[in-house]
Amino acid sequence: MRDELAKIEWLRARFELDGPPSAAIVGIGDDAAVFDFGARPTIVTVDAHVEGTHFRPALISFRDLGWRAMTAAVSDVWAMGGAPSASVVALTLGPDLADASFEELIGGLDEAARATGARVIGGNLSRSSLVSITTTAFGRPIVEPVTRHGARPGDGVYVTGTLGTSSLGLAILEAEAQGLDGAEPFVARWRRPPNNGGAARALARVASAAIDVSDGLIQDLRHLCRASGVGATIRVDLLPLAPNHASLCEMLNLDPLTFALSGGEDYELLFTAAPSAEAGALGTKIGEIGEGSGVRAVDESGKFIAIQRAGYDHFS
Amino acid sequence: MRDELAKIEWLRARFELDGPPSAAIVGIGDDAAVFDFGARPTIVTVDAHVEGTHFRPALISFRDLGWRAMTAAVSDVWAMGGAPSASVVALTLGPDLADASFEELIGGLDEAARATGARVIGGNLSRSSLVSITTTAFGRPIVEPVTRHGARPGDGVYVTGTLGTSSLGLAILEAEAQGLDGAEPFVARWRRPPNNGGAARALARVASAAIDVSDGLIQDLRHLCRASGVGATIRVDLLPLAPNHASLCEMLNLDPLTFALSGGEDYELLFTAAPSAEAGALGTKIGEIGEGSGVRAVDESGKFIAIQRAGYDHFS
Repeated sequence: MRDELAKIEWLRARFELDGPPSAAIVGIGDDAAVFDFGARPTIVTVDAHVEGTHFRPALISFRDLGWRAMTAAVSDVWAMGGAPSASVVALTLGPDLADASFEELIGGLDEAARATGARVIGGNLSRSSLVSITTTAFGRPIVEPVTRHGARPGDGVYVTGTLGTSSLGLAILEAEAQGLDGAEPFVARWRRPPNNGGAARALARVASAAIDVSDGLIQDLRHLCRASGVGATIRVDLLPLAPNHASLCEMLNLDPLTFALSGGEDYELLFTAAPSAEAGALGTKIGEIGEGSGVRAVDESGKFIAIQRAGYDHFS
Repeated sequence: MRDELAKIEWLRARFELDGPPSAAIVGIGDDAAVFDFGARPTIVTVDAHVEGTHFRPALISFRDLGWRAMTAAVSDVWAMGGAPSASVVALTLGPDLADASFEELIGGLDEAARATGARVIGGNLSRSSLVSITTTAFGRPIVEPVTRHGARPGDGVYVTGTLGTSSLGLAILEAEAQGLDGAEPFVARWRRPPNNGGAARALARVASAAIDVSDGLIQDLRHLCRASGVGATIRVDLLPLAPNHASLCEMLNLDPLTFALSGGEDYELLFTAAPSAEAGALGTKIGEIGEGSGVRAVDESGKFIAIQRAGYDHFS
């Protein structure tokens, strides 16, 4: 297995194949990278993927793990209405990780970075008993930063893509049920979160507030409502679900609504906007912002639906 | 114990006491921070502190651990000839970490950040079975970035502070010998790396190349020489040692020279410069850059000294 220096040399060569990323003045291999973020404000976010907490190695390839870690971090840039520009990645690796696995992990990180625009400009390697990937991602506001603070009564609540798909995919893997008809797209979504770069460009122009769905719809909408000082009502019959969501849940004896309301790691964009054709083209309208506080779920007839659990909390 | 949301609320309040850091447009509590790095290029570095690899909780308080993690990351900004400006911190914490310990850790991170100028503008919390602190630090070049590439034959090799002090401090702790006369400053140096902000300002004006001593003098000087395409000769009799270095090594039956040549985590600044009074005032001249490659150690009479080990490698 390559030692630390050999790993760094490999990384330097690996990332210099096409020359340094534009605007990177010093790339991999020095004490620090130097990057020209330009004159506009810079969006900065950091996200961790930790073995045993965010993934078990048995459930995901190193390549997909790299894609997942990078895309999850970049998702926060999109949720701020930003265009990703660069990233630095800190890895902790077991002392006996095979070089091929290391290369696959880096390949997945780089593949996702290139797909999103967040070119890898630096990083750090440490030994640990756990694999972890901590990704700091940078971007520029496409228009102005879209915070969680701007939702106003009368705004619609919209979400891109589908809800609960990723968490149902993980449940399918945990149940070793990936052979079921229609299960594969759910597993694939858990392993590879979506590239929402195009959605972020539209979002930057229409959204009054935004957040990405990482903890679960209800929990993340609560964050947004709390920051904006408003409340929200969600229509459970309007929640966008992937094909076969209900039938797979039935086969596995799982509650389809709990996954949609509380399943984390969809990394879809949840945003509020004055109702418009453009907002409706970007995402599914699932509810409305009102006065007050908190998030309520109702059915088609307006009857309240009990929320089993809000979403994922690392420390409860 | 506070749940995740309560931790984040505490952090938001903790870091808003004095208002958001200047140039931070969006601070803690949104998907990402937004920071105005200004028109000049930005220095970006990431560094990890992982339980079991970089520290054992029995040997360091949470407050010192926070200081250590932040200062070690910022050290790379200084080694690039930069002035620190901001940082984002990703923490992994055990599910049962006491709130008081969490607050001490944050207190140490914030204390070091304020001491160095790298105000904390964002971060991430995850549960894990290991405590880890991954710090991304930002800065601006004071003049131009000082890379590892600029050393030229005829340059002197200089180092700030003392060598092997931190690693001897750790050895003292591991031997439970902190009660020995004169041991305390070594232990304190391992727990709290130096603030080299003033040295970095001078370094930015005189250094042809620089690196911080994190892996050990020989190993880090090899990195610098390889990047610059030069060789170096070090005079072992000129290495700056802290008071009582030799006597403590003798009491503990340790080799004083191995700590000076190969001990890691001093976080002092190792730089090359055309010999001058200003360079000599900034650091101790310990050798010279020459043609060729590699690092040699010699004594006062020019006799070669065998190097036992180069320094720390995470993967060998």
